[in-house]
Parts: sequence; structure tokens; C-alpha cells
Amino acid sequence: MHHSSVTLDPAFRVAAVDPRVYGSFVEHMGRCVYTGIYEPGHGSADAHGFRADVADLVRELGTPVLRYPGGNFVSGYTWEDGVGPRENRPTRLDLAWRSLETNQVGVDEFATWARGVGSEPIMAVNLGTRGVDAARSLVEYANHPGGTRWSDLRRSNGFADPHGIKLWCLGNEMDGPWQIGHKTADEYARLANETAKAMRRVDPSIELVVCGSSNIRMPTFGTWEETVLRETYDAVDYVSLHSYYEQRGDDRGSFLASAVDLDRFIEAVVATCDHVRATGRHRKRINLSVDEWNVWYQARFPGEENLDWAEAPRLIEDEYSVVDAVVVGSLLISLLKHADRVKIGCLAQLVNVIAPIRSEPGGPAWRQTSFHPFALTSRHGRGTVLRVEPIGPSYETAEHGEVPILDATAVHDEETGAVTLFAVNRDQYEPLTLDVDLRSLPGLATAGHVALFDADPEATNTAANPDRVTPTRQPDTKVADGRLSVRLPPLSWNMLRLTS
Amino acid sequence: MHHSSVTLDPAFRVAAVDPRVYGSFVEHMGRCVYTGIYEPGHGSADAHGFRADVADLVRELGTPVLRYPGGNFVSGYTWEDGVGPRENRPTRLDLAWRSLETNQVGVDEFATWARGVGSEPIMAVNLGTRGVDAARSLVEYANHPGGTRWSDLRRSNGFADPHGIKLWCLGNEMDGPWQIGHKTADEYARLANETAKAMRRVDPSIELVVCGSSNIRMPTFGTWEETVLRETYDAVDYVSLHSYYEQRGDDRGSFLASAVDLDRFIEAVVATCDHVRATGRHRKRINLSVDEWNVWYQARFPGEENLDWAEAPRLIEDEYSVVDAVVVGSLLISLLKHADRVKIGCLAQLVNVIAPIRSEPGGPAWRQTSFHPFALTSRHGRGTVLRVEPIGPSYETAEHGEVPILDATAVHDEETGAVTLFAVNRDQYEPLTLDVDLRSLPGLATAGHVALFDADPEATNTAANPDRVTPTRQPDTKVADGRLSVRLPPLSWNMLRLTS
Amino acid sequence: MHHSSVTLDPAFRVAAVDPRVYGSFVEHMGRCVYTGIYEPGHGSADAHGFRADVADLVRELGTPVLRYPGGNFVSGYTWEDGVGPRENRPTRLDLAWRSLETNQVGVDEFATWARGVGSEPIMAVNLGTRGVDAARSLVEYANHPGGTRWSDLRRSNGFADPHGIKLWCLGNEMDGPWQIGHKTADEYARLANETAKAMRRVDPSIELVVCGSSNIRMPTFGTWEETVLRETYDAVDYVSLHSYYEQRGDDRGSFLASAVDLDRFIEAVVATCDHVRATGRHRKRINLSVDEWNVWYQARFPGEENLDWAEAPRLIEDEYSVVDAVVVGSLLISLLKHADRVKIGCLAQLVNVIAPIRSEPGGPAWRQTSFHPFALTSRHGRGTVLRVEPIGPSYETAEHGEVPILDATAVHDEETGAVTLFAVNRDQYEPLTLDVDLRSLPGLATAGHVALFDADPEATNTAANPDRVTPTRQPDTKVADGRLSVRLPPLSWNMLRLTS
Repeated sequence: MHHSSVTLDPAFRVAAVDPRVYGSFVEHMGRCVYTGIYEPGHGSADAHGFRADVADLVRELGTPVLRYPGGNFVSGYTWEDGVGPRENRPTRLDLAWRSLETNQVGVDEFATWARGVGSEPIMAVNLGTRGVDAARSLVEYANHPGGTRWSDLRRSNGFADPHGIKLWCLGNEMDGPWQIGHKTADEYARLANETAKAMRRVDPSIELVVCGSSNIRMPTFGTWEETVLRETYDAVDYVSLHSYYEQRGDDRGSFLASAVDLDRFIEAVVATCDHVRATGRHRKRINLSVDEWNVWYQARFPGEENLDWAEAPRLIEDEYSVVDAVVVGSLLISLLKHADRVKIGCLAQLVNVIAPIRSEPGGPAWRQTSFHPFALTSRHGRGTVLRVEPIGPSYETAEHGEVPILDATAVHDEETGAVTLFAVNRDQYEPLTLDVDLRSLPGLATAGHVALFDADPEATNTAANPDRVTPTRQPDTKVADGRLSVRLPPLSWNMLRLTS
Repeated sequence: MHHSSVTLDPAFRVAAVDPRVYGSFVEHMGRCVYTGIYEPGHGSADAHGFRADVADLVRELGTPVLRYPGGNFVSGYTWEDGVGPRENRPTRLDLAWRSLETNQVGVDEFATWARGVGSEPIMAVNLGTRGVDAARSLVEYANHPGGTRWSDLRRSNGFADPHGIKLWCLGNEMDGPWQIGHKTADEYARLANETAKAMRRVDPSIELVVCGSSNIRMPTFGTWEETVLRETYDAVDYVSLHSYYEQRGDDRGSFLASAVDLDRFIEAVVATCDHVRATGRHRKRINLSVDEWNVWYQARFPGEENLDWAEAPRLIEDEYSVVDAVVVGSLLISLLKHADRVKIGCLAQLVNVIAPIRSEPGGPAWRQTSFHPFALTSRHGRGTVLRVEPIGPSYETAEHGEVPILDATAVHDEETGAVTLFAVNRDQYEPLTLDVDLRSLPGLATAGHVALFDADPEATNTAANPDRVTPTRQPDTKVADGRLSVRLPPLSWNMLRLTS
Repeated sequence: MHHSSVTLDPAFRVAAVDPRVYGSFVEHMGRCVYTGIYEPGHGSADAHGFRADVADLVRELGTPVLRYPGGNFVSGYTWEDGVGPRENRPTRLDLAWRSLETNQVGVDEFATWARGVGSEPIMAVNLGTRGVDAARSLVEYANHPGGTRWSDLRRSNGFADPHGIKLWCLGNEMDGPWQIGHKTADEYARLANETAKAMRRVDPSIELVVCGSSNIRMPTFGTWEETVLRETYDAVDYVSLHSYYEQRGDDRGSFLASAVDLDRFIEAVVATCDHVRATGRHRKRINLSVDEWNVWYQARFPGEENLDWAEAPRLIEDEYSVVDAVVVGSLLISLLKHADRVKIGCLAQLVNVIAPIRSEPGGPAWRQTSFHPFALTSRHGRGTVLRVEPIGPSYETAEHGEVPILDATAVHDEETGAVTLFAVNRDQYEPLTLDVDLRSLPGLATAGHVALFDADPEATNTAANPDRVTPTRQPDTKVADGRLSVRLPPLSWNMLRLTS
């Protein structure tokens, strides 16, 4: 049995949580859109062809924003293909995933559906094969009330009101040689800057995300961000980072410590932003959009070049284990710990494609293991992040060096006074006693405890057994003398709801 | 009373005046086109919807060339929008001026109208959001007789004869970060060069203007021109410069000396051209196109980003005073003094938008104060510019250092033998006696004198009082012993017509 | 009488001949397509409008591959113009050759026709005015089976089966300032790389040729290849080189040694490829595509800028002499000598435009002098090139220094055992005795000898006298003691067929 302790004090705060940190991502890839959110023939399909069973799970998941339509997909995308009468929409070769794209879902359907499930759409523009002109037209189509070429086209397509999309991504992973129309940092910086300026002229109320690095191991990591931000600083609001994690071989210890890597990545990007801010004599700060993150077993992916043309093929439908879910919960803790700079996060992706929600064509939809920590964090992790500095033991990892066994953060809901503590016990074998000092929050009396763990850490949820892994309610704990103590099971994700 | 003297001698000449130096500029901006030159419902409108009252004033103004359709506007312009049946033309968001562009006037209407008012059109191509392909298509549309895709489209649109547009601008102010699709000097140099070559392949008879600096205070001034000319020298004929002036605070003395700044700007660009010529071992010379110049109270402009979408809004409809008119007259003197290198000038703009002509929708059209020195210079300033080297007093300015009180040039009409002397007295309070030595021009006997000045230097012309400020005829002066002496009122623009 | 000797030994080989080295080139230029291969009103025209008389000559010429549609033409080409109902195809200004392009032949017709004459089409994409998007669409149109926007368009145009074009050129002569949309090496490298990657995503089975130098005298020769290959090495398979030769003044000695220049050019490009391979730690080799080569009297060409708009004008219809044919034969020997690295060659062009085949509108088609060495080399030069190292006299040239009088190579057909020796006697006045040591090829007994030469080396073939110059059968020679000796006439191209 290990022992750790944390002190919660509302005088020591990180920042308010931006709810957009709980976003997700819908790419035209595999079965995320088709037979994922959209399947006209499905028993649960609504009048527009969207699955009600999946929509219900999305609402339960709690994603205030949804990034769309890619991902790598967007770099070859012609957005005009996806609007207007469905029977006129072309089927395209999607070169990103070597798939057939029928364009039955486009910006109009997606924006409408997203609002219906309680999410704001985040739209990416194609800076792979297209540029300023296509981007400004799309902003006009989506956001201009009417009376012009593109806004009237939207109206004639049956969408009288503008979609009012407020957050836009200037392309996707443009630093990656795999990207259709990949750019050098200089090329991208220039294109992003001119595109951003034109998009803002159409709608000055929008916010813009410029592409940072596709992962921390990119050879251009850091220099890319510096070059891009020097050019675009005034024209953009956020810089993106993408990060995926997987267990390599049997090194579960390193995998459980993935959030340490995400912490480092975030802090490195913050440093670059602030370096460019200082040397460029800028006033505003650039914040971060972690707009693709998740556990992804990339080692299992054959590579785009080995895919064959198909409609909605089964691509990277990773089945997540208890371990994976604990890591997802831990990565969310990392995002919250950086709430002062990380304003947007997108769990990639929403359905089927490395996703918390799975669905079968003509069949059921269900929650993967990772659904649970995400949904609970999104629901209860609203308010102000408190500065949590755990004291306790650590362990050695091959990938990340010495890592604390406890990963934790806490969110203070100033309206209700409740505090929610999220905590992961990374030890695979031993429980962890966590002592919480609450003397600065005298009103809190009871801790409700929910934990995700399993005797079989490789257990997963499947269509046949969709609730094999769920969080379990642990006994309530009472606060005594401003302190409480709970036991975190080995290899577990935990949520403590502290209320009066 | 100050005293100055000049000597006129036909043996000392600058160069022949290129009549195109008296050009103006019609941009799709504010009310220059719509309710400016074009207003179908107006009482004076012709069959094509163009206002006859405005057209009459344009003819009187005397503009041998008119630049079109922008300005910043052109960098987002799709020229195809403005051709064909009017009912099919799209309404576009003009991002340059955040206005609605109905495209009711396009290249066909403009070229036809310009010829009707005695002007050759100068056409700019979009190098902001477009490139080689759109530019070559436009040259084909405008200038190719027929039998091809674009020329036949023009014919089917009712314009059987090619417009024969001889002078083309390779974009507009591409050095300005405000420009849609702004380019670095290197980017622009390459794009301009390839576009120029393709345009010339379509019509080898055209002349081309490459963008120089948007103003002399641009941080890239000089290096921009050098970079651009090194790349494009063989492919272009002229380099542009733009320059606007306004009175800052109550410093009228500096404002009256604006032509000194324009002189320096012109001479600096000439130096760069000739430096590139020498080091590049070129034979031909690059000449200058001052294709936007005027008095413009930019301090009053809220900035593009603060404009709201509207059709033909009232934008920068500066009302010009007597002082402004004197400065305009003085700037024309500067252009003439550099007639050896300045071959094209465009007073920006023609109607309503910082313009010599004003019009009201459904109402009258009238001449601003600045109309008068421009019209008189254009009418009488034809022939050969003589080298005029005034001797006389100077005064100190905050912006330009020590400046001569007298600004003057003279144009010799070798056919009639007449000489026209243009002279400005910059002193705000005292008249200036000007002695002219004409002994080398023995045939000249009489000087007709017209002057623009007013007891109230802030007086303007308005719809209600359109002739409040006009030039006045001064007493004739006789030449005696090859000399004459005239009195220039304080703060005045003057024209002396010396005839036999 | 000079004496030379060669030794043929199947143990010393260069490499197998890639039959694609015998390719030719069909550009939309002059009368190569229109009234060349295609002339609907012609007496011999087939149902598709293609001339059967010309097609027969193409089959006889023996061109396993045909490059299309340019050349300089392709850099302004919109491939969509050339598909679909002919009556809807636009007439375009072709800026490359200042001609009118009616688009009556496009990719569908050409690919079909090429297969009909026994040739695989090689298709070039436009990297002058277009980029990634147009290129990927064309690959989809040409090669994707169906079910997508562009492949279904092909099907609806009557071409149910994909054309399966396997070899593609990434633009044409992009190093040349004359090229529409000319690029710097850096610009082209980046564009070619991104275009190549996207094209391969559409069809991973294609091979790609990246542009090298337009000729060995380009100021960027060498640095261009290095820059381009460093960027594109992984994405491409071949690098191109183009080379044309002509007699300057009366210096026939230098002209006859043109192959020496081609040898040097090829070897220099090989060196650059292998330098980039070594320093970039690449495994694969980049091979060479000499995809434009011929004798061309460029001195007679007025320059594109002096051409006037016309449909299928008579452009560079060089009439080839005996000397020219001997040089063509010698250039083929150069390609074969580099069979280890030169995998593709395109005699430029196929019909009328500096071509081996000539045709008259409504009239006959005939073989130029150069047809003969090409056709014979293509027919008999299949198998494995043997290493041939002639011993014999040389002569001094103004352009190429000291040059061997004998130019020779040999191809061993391992199936039949036959060996074909191609040999040129560059001496204009004296015959050359050639001794061949065949002791390592004991089965060979007889040498059939065909020679091209004439008492009048300036003799040509014309419509009126189409067979004025043809190869003549020389007396057979017997192999004796593993040796034979033949007499090569002055200024002659020779083929010795050694059989059992």
C-alpha cells in the first residue's frame, strides 16, 4: 500500500476550465461519419439519417465542441461537394485514407447535427490542395446571413440561418509529409497568415487555430511553431498540438505515464508561444488547442498506402481496455492541469475510429471503456482548476524516467461550492491511500467516490458485452477535521465528488 | 511680399509630357462606381445606366487613362463575375472594403464607358487570390478578337470588338499587409514575372506595370522595388508608386510642401530602377507609374475592419478645401517635373471616393476644389516640360525641412509656340512676385493668368454651393524686354498662359 | 581508308535494353496532332478521325511508348478541355506555341489511338498554371476503374475501361524561363514532390518522371537536378533530360559527333543522381528519361513570340538529310550505351514537327531519312547491350574535341542468339574498315549488312520523292575464325545482323 497526499486550497488556482477542452472530433474517415453518426437505414435513424442511439451517447459523453471534417481528410477536401441536393453530390477519392467519400454528409448536415447533440462545430479549412479563396468562401457560406453568392447558396440549400461557426482550424497537421499538399514551415506560415486575414475579413468574430506539430517527435517540432507563430501571431488565437499514446510491447508502466509526455509537450509549446510573444513585442497570448489526442495503437495501422478504396471501411477501430481508459482519464488530468493555456481539446475521434463510442451498421451502439472517464470528467470537471501538488512515491519508467504514482487534479465549482478531484493510481499492483487536506474548503463534508478499474486490466466492452467495464460506486467518505482519506485501487481512475 | 524668378529656355527641357500622367482611377469602392459613374435610375442616366452629368464632368476633367477596377478591391476580384447577363451576376463580399459588390459594372461596361468619356482603360489583374491563369484569361477576354473560349464569351456578351486594353497592372499594393493575398517581395516578384510573361504571350502589344511601394514609409520601401525589378525587369515596363497626403494637426506649412515628398519618392524609385538596370546590364529603362496619388485624410478613415457590409456605402468622401486644391496642383507640378520618368499618373479616385468629382444618388454632380487645377493642367499641360529652376526664398517645415515658397514648372507646346507656367505660392500670408525671363522665347507677348485662392482657405464646394471655389481670371500681363512679372496671391495655385 | 576494331563478348554487358528507350513524343504543337496523326477528312481516316497511313508508319517506326500532350504545351493545358463531346470542347489560346488549340483530340482519344499503334501512352501533367488538384484528378480520370467523380466522367464519355497509364511526367522543362509558369528549382521541387505524392495515392502503380534540365547549357544545369532530387527522391522514379542537336554553319564534323555531347550529358546526370543517392542515404536508384531528343534546326525557329495565332500551323517541320539521319542513328547508339541508366527515350516528335514521319493535309505520309535508323534500331535493338569499346582513329572537332571516327554499340538477343551491331562512320570522305572479334560468340556465322549513306549527304525525302533516301542492303559477310571485317561507307549509319 502506497500513500500520497494533496492539499486543496481555492486561493491557489490554475484557471477556469474552458468547456471546449472536452471537445471531440468527427473526421470523414473509416466509419466515424458513415455508419457512425450517420446511417439512414438504421432503425434509430432520424429524418435526416442520423442515428439516435449514437446521438444519445454523444450527448451523454458531453462534448461542447466537435472538430470537423478532418484531420488528414480535410487537406484534399472540396467543401462544395458536401452541400446541395444529396443526389448531385460527387463521390470522391479521399486520398488521405484511400477511401471513397460519398459526400452525403457535409457542413450543413454536420453543423445542424452537432447543435442537436449540444456541440458547437469547429470547422477546418483545406490548406493542402486549396487556399485563401476556398477558405473565405466557406466562411461566407457558413456564417454570412445572406444576400451574397455563397450565403444565398446555403439559404437555397435549406439553411436560412447562418451556422455561426466560431472556431476554425487553418488546415490540419501541415507539418506532416503524409499530408496531401504538405507545406514547409515557411510555406505554411505564409499561407495560414493570408488565409486567416481573409477569413477574418468575412467574419471578424471568428477565432482561428494555426497548425503546430503533429506530434512531439516530429523533426521540425519547435522550429515549426516558432516559424509559424512569428508570421501569424496577430492573425491567430490558438496553436494546435496532436498527441497519441499506445503501449509499446509489455511496457505498461511507461504507457500509464503517458500524461507526463503530454505535460511536457504542452509546456514546450507554451514556452515557444511566449518566446515569440516576448521577442515580437506582442501583447496578446497564444493559447493551445490539443485538437487531437487519445490512445491509438498506431503500430496496428497498415499505413494509408496499404489501404484500398472502399466506402466507410473499418479503419483503426481500436477496442479500448481498462488500462487504456485509465490513460485517457490521466490525459484529461493533464489538460486540466494546463487550463491556463489549454483552451481546446478534441478527443480523436468520436465514433468507431479510435473512439469512445462504437456502433455497428444496422446494429447497436455502445460505450468503450474510455467513454466513462471522459464523460464523468466532462460532466463534473467544470469550474476552476485548483493547483494540486501531490506528495507521494514515484516509479521508474523506460520512456519517461521517474514518474509519480499518483496523477491528480481538482476542479472547484464556485457556484455550488463542490470540488471534484480526479485521481489516477498508476501502480498496477498496489492500492494507493490518498489523504486530502480540505481545511481551506471548510464547507465540504462528504466525498462520493467513483472508480474505474478491473481485475482484468485488459477487459474491454464489446457489442456482445457492452457494459463489461463501467465505473463503480465506492463507499462514501466523510471529511473529518478538514481531512479525508480514500483508497485508490491498483491501476485505477477515480473521481471524488466533494460536497457539503 | 516675396520675390522669385524663373528662366524659361526651350533649349533646356525635361521631356515630352506623356498625356497618361493625367489619368485617374475608378475602383469598386464606396460610391465611385455605383451612384458615381453608374446609376441606372438617375435622371441623367444613359441607356447603359451611366450618369451623363458625371460623364460630362469627367470629359471636362480630362483623363486620358482610367485605372480599373482597383486598388485593394482587385486582390479579391473574380473578373468573370462582372461579365454576361446582369441578372446572373453574383453579389460578392468585397473583403477589401467589407462591402457588397453587385457586379453590375464589369470590364465590358467599364471599357466601353471609359472610351466614351475619352479615356483609355488601364486594367489591373488579381494577384491576391488568383494568378497566371485568371490573368491570361482576362487578357484573352478583353483583347483577343475572337474564335477562342474567352474571346467568344465576350462576343456572346455583346462586345464583338476586343477592348484593346493596352496597359495592365500586375496586382495592386502587393507590399501591403492589408492586401488580400499579400505577398512578400520574393513571392510577388516570382508571381508577377510568370504572370507578365503569360499575359504578353496572349497579347504582345500590352504594357505592364509592376507593383512598387504603397507609400514611401513602408518598411520594405526600396528593397521591395529592388527585389521585384531584379526578377521582372525584362517582363515589365513600369513600376508603380502610390502616395497620399494630408494635413496633420495644424501644420499647414508641411502639408503645402507635400510635393517635396513626392519629388523625393519619385527620385528614389528612379534611382532603384537605374541601379537594377546598371547591375543587371539591361538596356531598356523602367519608367514610373504614380498610379494612386491625391490628398486623402486617412486619419479620418476608421479602417477596413470597422466597416460593415453595405452596397456602395459612403466611404472616404473627403470634401476638399482650397488648401487641398493648391496641394493637388502642386503635386501635378511634381509629376511634370519628372516627365522624363513619370509616364503615368492616376489621381485617386475619379468620383466621390477622395475624388475631384462628387455626385449624389438621384441628385447633382459637381466639381470639388481640386477639380480645377487638375482640369486646367491636363488641358494646357501638353507638350514638352521645360527645365524650371526657381530662385527665391524658402521656409522651414516640420516634415520636409527647408522648402522653396515657389513651386513651378512650365510646358512648351511646340506646335502653337505657347508656354504654360504652373506655379504655387506656398506662403499662407504673403503674395509672391514672380519674374519670368523669356528672352529665349522671343515670340511670347502676353500672359493670361488664372489663379485658385480664397480669403477662406478652408472653403469647399458642396452640392448646395458647387461653385463656391473656382479659379479666377487675373489681369493679363504683357511681356516687356523678354521679361514679365506677375503677382501670385498667398496660398494660391496659378496658371500663366504665355502666347504670342 | 581507316581501320577500327571491336570485340563482342557476352560476358561484358551494359544492361538489358528497356524497350521504352525507343519512345517518341506527340505534342499539341504545329501539325503533330492535327493533320499529323489526326485528320478526320483525310482519305485514310478511321472512324475516329485518325489517319491510317500515318498510323501504319508509326507501327513500322516501332515506338513502345509515346509521351503526350507536351512539351511546353502542357504547362498551360486544361486537360478537362479535351474530354467529353467534341462539339462542347473549347478552342483555347495555346500560349506555348501561340497557336489555336481546338481540343478535338484529348487524353481519351490519344490513349486509345496509342494502344492501337502498339504504344503505351506517357502522360504529362500541367505544373505550369496548375498543381496538385488537377494532377490527381487526371490520374483518377485516366486510371481509376469507376464509381467516382472523375472516373465516372470518363465512363460517361464512352471509355468504360481505365486507360491504365503507367508512366507520368511531372510537368515539362520547368527549368526554362520560356515555360508558362516557370519555376525556380526550389519551387518546382516542392510542387513536384507534393504532386507526386498525391498522384501515387490515387494510383500507387504509376511511375513518375521529374523534370531535369531542358539542355546541358542551362545555367541551372546540375544544381537544378540536385535541388529537385534532394526534395523528390523518394517520390519519383526517373529524372528527365532533353537534348537537341543541329549543324552550326558548315561545321559538319562537330555535328556528326553530337552523340559525344549526349554521352556527357547522360553521364553528368547519372553522377548527380548517384551523388544525391549517396548523401541522402537512399537505397533505390533514380534512372534517366531522355524524353526529348532529336536533330532540330533551332536556328531556323523564329521564337514563340513571333508566331501568330493559327490552328495547326506549319511549325519546325525540319526536312532531314542523310547527315541528320546518321546523327539520329548515332544518338540512338548513345542511349543504348547507357542502357543501365537510360530507361526511357522519346524521339521528339512523332509526326511533322521535327519528326521521322511527315504528312500533308489531304495528302500522303512518308518517311523522313531519320525514320530508317530509328525503325531498324527499334526493331533489332532488343535484348542486352554488350560493352563495345572500339579501337581506331579519331578526329578533331571544334565543339567536342577529339572524337572517334567509329561510333558503335551491339545488342545481344539472348533468345535467338543473334547480335546486332550498330555502327556509324563519322568520316565524311573515307570508308572505314571495321574488324569484329566474335570469338566469344562462336555460333555466329553470317553478317547481314544494311547501310544508310548517299553520294549527296544533303539528300532528303519529300512528298514528291519519299524514298529518295533509304537504307541499302550491303553484301553479306561470313564470319571466319571468329572474325569478320566489313567496310563502312563514308558518313554512314550501319546495322550488322550477326546470326548463325
